[in-house]
Amino acid sequence: MGNCLNGCCERPKSTNIRLSFPIVCFVWQVAMIVLFGVFIRYNQDADTHWAEFRAANNISSNVENDFYYRYPSFQDVHVMIFVGFGFLMTFLKRYSFGAVGFNFLIAAFGIQWALLMQGWFHSLDYTDGKIKIGVENLINADFCVAGCLIAYGAVLGKVSPVQLLVMTLFGVTLFAVEEFIIITVLHVRDAGGSMVIHVFGGYYGLAISWVLYRPNLDQSKRLQGSVYHSDVFAMIGTLFLWMFWPSFNSAISYHGDGQHRAAINTYLSLAASVLTTMAISSFCQKKGKLDMVHIQNSTLAGGVAVGTAAEFMLMPYGSLIVGFCCGIISTFGYIYATPLLEKYLKIQDTCGIHNLHAVPGVIGGVVGAITAAAATPAVYGEEGLIHVFEFTGTFQNRTPSIQGGYQAAGLCVALIFGIGGGILVGLILRLPIWRDPADDACFNDEVYWELPEDEESIPPILEYNNHMTHKQQEVSESNFSVEQI
Amino acid sequence: MGNCLNGCCERPKSTNIRLSFPIVCFVWQVAMIVLFGVFIRYNQDADTHWAEFRAANNISSNVENDFYYRYPSFQDVHVMIFVGFGFLMTFLKRYSFGAVGFNFLIAAFGIQWALLMQGWFHSLDYTDGKIKIGVENLINADFCVAGCLIAYGAVLGKVSPVQLLVMTLFGVTLFAVEEFIIITVLHVRDAGGSMVIHVFGGYYGLAISWVLYRPNLDQSKRLQGSVYHSDVFAMIGTLFLWMFWPSFNSAISYHGDGQHRAAINTYLSLAASVLTTMAISSFCQKKGKLDMVHIQNSTLAGGVAVGTAAEFMLMPYGSLIVGFCCGIISTFGYIYATPLLEKYLKIQDTCGIHNLHAVPGVIGGVVGAITAAAATPAVYGEEGLIHVFEFTGTFQNRTPSIQGGYQAAGLCVALIFGIGGGILVGLILRLPIWRDPADDACFNDEVYWELPEDEESIPPILEYNNHMTHKQQEVSESNFSVEQI
Amino acid sequence: MGNCLNGCCERPKSTNIRLSFPIVCFVWQVAMIVLFGVFIRYNQDADTHWAEFRAANNISSNVENDFYYRYPSFQDVHVMIFVGFGFLMTFLKRYSFGAVGFNFLIAAFGIQWALLMQGWFHSLDYTDGKIKIGVENLINADFCVAGCLIAYGAVLGKVSPVQLLVMTLFGVTLFAVEEFIIITVLHVRDAGGSMVIHVFGGYYGLAISWVLYRPNLDQSKRLQGSVYHSDVFAMIGTLFLWMFWPSFNSAISYHGDGQHRAAINTYLSLAASVLTTMAISSFCQKKGKLDMVHIQNSTLAGGVAVGTAAEFMLMPYGSLIVGFCCGIISTFGYIYATPLLEKYLKIQDTCGIHNLHAVPGVIGGVVGAITAAAATPAVYGEEGLIHVFEFTGTFQNRTPSIQGGYQAAGLCVALIFGIGGGILVGLILRLPIWRDPADDACFNDEVYWELPEDEESIPPILEYNNHMTHKQQEVSESNFSVEQI
Repeated sequence: MGNCLNGCCERPKSTNIRLSFPIVCFVWQVAMIVLFGVFIRYNQDADTHWAEFRAANNISSNVENDFYYRYPSFQDVHVMIFVGFGFLMTFLKRYSFGAVGFNFLIAAFGIQWALLMQGWFHSLDYTDGKIKIGVENLINADFCVAGCLIAYGAVLGKVSPVQLLVMTLFGVTLFAVEEFIIITVLHVRDAGGSMVIHVFGGYYGLAISWVLYRPNLDQSKRLQGSVYHSDVFAMIGTLFLWMFWPSFNSAISYHGDGQHRAAINTYLSLAASVLTTMAISSFCQKKGKLDMVHIQNSTLAGGVAVGTAAEFMLMPYGSLIVGFCCGIISTFGYIYATPLLEKYLKIQDTCGIHNLHAVPGVIGGVVGAITAAAATPAVYGEEGLIHVFEFTGTFQNRTPSIQGGYQAAGLCVALIFGIGGGILVGLILRLPIWRDPADDACFNDEVYWELPEDEESIPPILEYNNHMTHKQQEVSESNFSVEQI
Repeated sequence: MGNCLNGCCERPKSTNIRLSFPIVCFVWQVAMIVLFGVFIRYNQDADTHWAEFRAANNISSNVENDFYYRYPSFQDVHVMIFVGFGFLMTFLKRYSFGAVGFNFLIAAFGIQWALLMQGWFHSLDYTDGKIKIGVENLINADFCVAGCLIAYGAVLGKVSPVQLLVMTLFGVTLFAVEEFIIITVLHVRDAGGSMVIHVFGGYYGLAISWVLYRPNLDQSKRLQGSVYHSDVFAMIGTLFLWMFWPSFNSAISYHGDGQHRAAINTYLSLAASVLTTMAISSFCQKKGKLDMVHIQNSTLAGGVAVGTAAEFMLMPYGSLIVGFCCGIISTFGYIYATPLLEKYLKIQDTCGIHNLHAVPGVIGGVVGAITAAAATPAVYGEEGLIHVFEFTGTFQNRTPSIQGGYQAAGLCVALIFGIGGGILVGLILRLPIWRDPADDACFNDEVYWELPEDEESIPPILEYNNHMTHKQQEVSESNFSVEQI
Repeated sequence: MGNCLNGCCERPKSTNIRLSFPIVCFVWQVAMIVLFGVFIRYNQDADTHWAEFRAANNISSNVENDFYYRYPSFQDVHVMIFVGFGFLMTFLKRYSFGAVGFNFLIAAFGIQWALLMQGWFHSLDYTDGKIKIGVENLINADFCVAGCLIAYGAVLGKVSPVQLLVMTLFGVTLFAVEEFIIITVLHVRDAGGSMVIHVFGGYYGLAISWVLYRPNLDQSKRLQGSVYHSDVFAMIGTLFLWMFWPSFNSAISYHGDGQHRAAINTYLSLAASVLTTMAISSFCQKKGKLDMVHIQNSTLAGGVAVGTAAEFMLMPYGSLIVGFCCGIISTFGYIYATPLLEKYLKIQDTCGIHNLHAVPGVIGGVVGAITAAAATPAVYGEEGLIHVFEFTGTFQNRTPSIQGGYQAAGLCVALIFGIGGGILVGLILRLPIWRDPADDACFNDEVYWELPEDEESIPPILEYNNHMTHKQQEVSESNFSVEQI
């Protein structure tokens, strides 16, 4: 085990992705181009016919183009996906390249496939059989990818990039179907995706991790922690997620008061999470010291849990209560649930997505169901109630209490898709063809990345002597050590 | 003293916050929930009755919801508060967790308390006794917290998180009262808060630091510097503050030309600061080398100093002049004033907020008073003059020169609240109950944070030998040293 | 050579910029103030007369102020310039201060000079001889500076800050002229500046680097690589560039569908680049490992190459094709072209701007010319075609195919200005007065920056012994080494 890093290098076949990975990337990217060619066009807000559309629809100003309602939120969400998720996972001492690099890969592939999958379900123009996309589709694609990135958190450091691409292909597909059932068929409201994104993504990742259980993972234990600077890098991810979560939860809400309210509720819930997370983190440690793992993760739980109800009249104090509870539950999860999950359920959850996404997502779904069921015209106004829950057309006979039931049903659908889909995909990923790292080479960038020379590995101690340059030997003989920074 | 890090561990009582900190967090967060329940509701732009409000007020489009005027600026300000201030303070070699983590804590608590305090003064709906909040309140809460984060800069590394929470509680309270007097009673214009935020926050922090003077702080001297990577982390903070400062100064200006002008003026002032900061930094060093401390801080002074006058017709060249002067003054401050402050006034100012916030803030107040007094209808237009200075209602008889006097009065109020409030709060923080670190344990994350194992402390040299594992000893006997990265 | 770091210190005259640098900064900043005083005023959207302008032009709402159309995009572009370009260049192990600090300097000076230069050409109000600026001018100034920052990438680590300021002064001047010829005279469309920014900036930098060729640069070879953390810092730059590139390419497009379409096309092109970059990076390495240099750079090539055509009806699949090809070409460029350029053309291109900007920029120009020539009323609509290409006024007789020819001519102009201007400026920079670093002191922050003490240099090994403190010596005699973190 002291030699494990060298060990990996002696089995280059096992993790050499020189053929499989480029082939998958190329074939899939070509497939995307073909499918986009056949199916995807601009919607009227992004097409050169916009001026005619404006005139025909009496839209008085260019500023009513959906771009101006949604683009700032889109960019915030985009930052969450690429910097937020990417850097949040850089906390491991030797997996920062993999964290931020594979996150980048998954997201860049996933958004393309999501535009197609979600497009077929939601944006198909039946007059010409084309999917018409605009900025709202870009946001939804980012949302869809978020589910896969959450799942990546559970298997971080233990899978190959090819496995990640497979996981994303199926993840996006399952997501689109699940979303269609929940949002369109069941007519469930889920602005910030507590259920659609976090419950699905969380349990999808946990189920995959369960199927891919590695009994000897402790062989990589020395790399499973952080170092000082990697924890600071991870805080970049945490903070960008935290700050822009109000944009995430409000990005696809109705123009006007819906977006406004969703942002306020999320802002407040997140603030409350920070205080209770810090309190529990300090309280549960013998000497009262804070743990970076909790600060990096549980402070975000309030944003997850307020996702469904963010656009409802949750009231500012309601948001605070949600954040208050989730900060506590999530931090306890990191302290108690994660070790138990590994010990008894054989689920190895690298980033603790169980505590940050799965459980807070379920809470979010429940809060959404309760607040929907409790909605009254006295609070929402007659029109407001119809508008918020879209009780129009086929759904005009729905009442808040019925809606509450459907919300709960939506939560169940997300759970089923997450767990069921995860098990299926996990079985596919267990095939011995994916070149995933050995048990003693997990959490190690060296497996899939060219590392800068002077830090290529923590050198096996006794061998190092033999590799020393003449000058170094001279020095060590003079009883003194070289320090390379 | 060579043993001080171990020393701290031998006196766990002194810095063990396991009870006090969680209790304060919990009680205060519960209090927030109760007060929010009693007082805080959505304003009409965020309420489901918005559609009715729109109809009643002939607002033609959802895009006129205040959300779309303010939200992008709000998010920029939000980034400044959490990433900007947080990372700016990560420059110390061993206090990055405390910098970014406690900044997060202060801000998350402060924004909640600020919504209440500022709400009572500015957003109370007298028909139902409720505070009605929208996106502008969120921005103002972020602004309010900025004052406390500035103050944190002065005491960085020397106080406990409980003290920080106390400091924030009183800081926000004082801020809200001061702001009410300056903005509402005196009818002073202060778009970017040169006085309200920077002068108050700066002198509040300096006064606290003065009361908490530690004569033996040089016992922590070895930790009071930076390392290469911590300086790069700090540049993340600097740049996000620098880039988004135009949003900060324009975030609550009037819709339309006011926001537009404030952004342009700030952009220009900041640009000029960069050049003069670099010039002075190089000039004052024997070999002409640049000092990261100056680049990290003084480049921002132009943004502080243009805060009050940003929405006036300061003219582009006026903004450049302000930035030009403040870059010089602030850099000289770091070189000469900070050491003198410590030596003669017994003020230990970790981040140099005297040079970045206090002095540039005063300059900003003076610039604001002068430019207000010099305003003419020839430049502003008759209507423009009334609109910019809001010479309506009770204040319709004000002239620019009278306004200039009031602006100066506002500056005095900010100074008095800052210094006076800081002394009072400082006295409270001197009580021996707060578990602040000993003089030889300042600027050290180890006191309040679980640190990654391999870097838990710089090991006392001779003892290290005894703690070595067998393998390590073997190696050291072979005259060679282990390097842990 | 083992002593080179000390060597630099022994020749303090060669790189001491204590007089020249501050003088240049001061004189130029004063010149800016004078020129701004004479020439620059607010435009009607930023002036207090906006209310009158609104009334006179029947603008119904403040939200139609150009600020609200452009400001969010402006801030994204601003982040790309300061954090994106700055951090992208931090990958070198010992040049992070120079990367992020000099990037800051260049940009802060450049935007001021660009406001003047571009203002004279594009925003001069002939009624009063003043340049009237608004948010669009700020964006254009950022664009202009981007050209200079690209050029900085080629000479990174090899020039003095005074040289950089000279390079920026001339670079901005050349840019403004080139832009005037391309955009105004030739009436070429170039929304994202593939030609105007990237081709010009890329070849400008390469030509300068060619003139400044250092045959003995391998004396600094040991500093020309990255370390683990510096690669992670560089990813901050990469991701912010990547995420906000849709804002870059759409920032100055027409309100409405133009901006919307440009953002979508860029989003897609970038996504495709990521997959092909990763594929080629893995495929070209013996063991299939990914190379951070490619991920940091080539993933962005799609954004460069789609710049010109982003606002055209390129179609989503067209954008994917552009990104697909550029990811491949750019990665191959890093693997094969960069070494060949150095070997045969004597061009030392530190950041590989040849592969990220120059070549993708040329591709972007060609794609723009082809897609413009192929535009038809069937796709664009009669009105849309006229609107997108602005076939009005003097240009009403242009047809798409003629436009295609002009687009190609624009590309040639950008190339000529880049190469020709670069050679001229390079010759100026070869004068022996600029205090640039010696060949063995390149890529080293120590030359122009005060470094934190404990990492001031990698100590010459044998001398280190003499500088040791007593305590350290004691330890080394006991056969054990001190580790400073």
